[in-house]
Amino acid sequence: MEEIRIIEVKQSVFADNDEKAEELRQKLREKGCFLVNIMSSPGSGKTSILTRLIPALKDKYKIAVMEADIDSDVDARTIAEKTGVAAIQLHTGGMCHLDAAMTRQGLDEVGAEAFDLIFLENVGNLVCPAEFDTGASKNLVILSVPEGDDKPLKYPLMFEKADVVLLNKIDVLPYFDFDVDKFAGYLKIRNPRAELLPVSARSGEGLEHVVAWLDKAIEEWRK
Amino acid sequence: MEEIRIIEVKQSVFADNDEKAEELRQKLREKGCFLVNIMSSPGSGKTSILTRLIPALKDKYKIAVMEADIDSDVDARTIAEKTGVAAIQLHTGGMCHLDAAMTRQGLDEVGAEAFDLIFLENVGNLVCPAEFDTGASKNLVILSVPEGDDKPLKYPLMFEKADVVLLNKIDVLPYFDFDVDKFAGYLKIRNPRAELLPVSARSGEGLEHVVAWLDKAIEEWRK
Repeated sequence: MEEIRIIEVKQSVFADNDEKAEELRQKLREKGCFLVNIMSSPGSGKTSILTRLIPALKDKYKIAVMEADIDSDVDARTIAEKTGVAAIQLHTGGMCHLDAAMTRQGLDEVGAEAFDLIFLENVGNLVCPAEFDTGASKNLVILSVPEGDDKPLKYPLMFEKADVVLLNKIDVLPYFDFDVDKFAGYLKIRNPRAELLPVSARSGEGLEHVVAWLDKAIEEWRK
Repeated sequence: MEEIRIIEVKQSVFADNDEKAEELRQKLREKGCFLVNIMSSPGSGKTSILTRLIPALKDKYKIAVMEADIDSDVDARTIAEKTGVAAIQLHTGGMCHLDAAMTRQGLDEVGAEAFDLIFLENVGNLVCPAEFDTGASKNLVILSVPEGDDKPLKYPLMFEKADVVLLNKIDVLPYFDFDVDKFAGYLKIRNPRAELLPVSARSGEGLEHVVAWLDKAIEEWRK
């Protein structure tokens, strides 16, 4: 039987995506458009955090949001209604992640040149989106308290790819066996450079630190 | 402490997965081994539910557990320590799901013929595992309250593939905006035949209904 070279196929797909992502990142830089790729499990609070963050940012930045989902337009509708910024829904047609080509299609649709800050809400999935560079300037990863403090051990790549990690739903810490110090330690093992910001999308606690992190990241990126 | 066996499983891209899954299901039937494929997001409580369920089942059935994970042996270790049943860890090497060939490798390793009930804990992911038939007799899907009641709208395939859906962490219902009736309605849209069983792995509430569901499913399967 002929030898099957599975790995090479996978690598060439990834390599092709990396190249496309790098091109996109370059184009966005020329347009002065800072793209934040938001990744997490389903239900960790990507949309809720955005609806809280945007009002604190929209006087400073021209903002748009791209909501990726397998199906439904629940999230784009929520963002548009609650924040008033431009929001579009990307349907992935069953795909478990976004790649650079899919992201570029979304940016063309939204008209990236008209905005200086675009949030891309990736598909809710702690595995696959980490494997595909979207071309974003920064990766923001969210983990929520009910998911458990051991997740950096189990989903290493996602935490390795993060520039910043938001620990969401800290308002329910009393009701869960979640050890924040343990989580911080596991995160450090995977990624010593990722900042950890505890927040609550419900109460708004800690979100000022996310705003500060974004301001600083955009300032440095503009230099 | 007993050493946890870690099996590196590899996906066979070119195989017809559905065919392999059907073959595996047939073989398991001949061996009298009922295989339950457990799927959910990361942190929904797959392992916690198993550690609660197994003590209520192990006098009736010879049980083994296969824990799939991208990395770490946290879960297999937990199962072995807390329940005393045979547990092995399957490492997927970055893969976001298990297919039938990977499942078969695990079953060969665990020695399926020695057991009449095997739980397969799939990779924590509400997207990809639904796309690959593992050869299991039944698919058990878990959603937890903190993830939100809109998930059947956003992750349709997972809920379509479920034979039974456990709504876990009902002990924290007072702290989340989760509408159980709404969730039941969305689930019905996706899959009218899936049973919905509200449970709490922490308090043990509702788990007797899962035991009853399993007993009935195994009894019907044996006919």
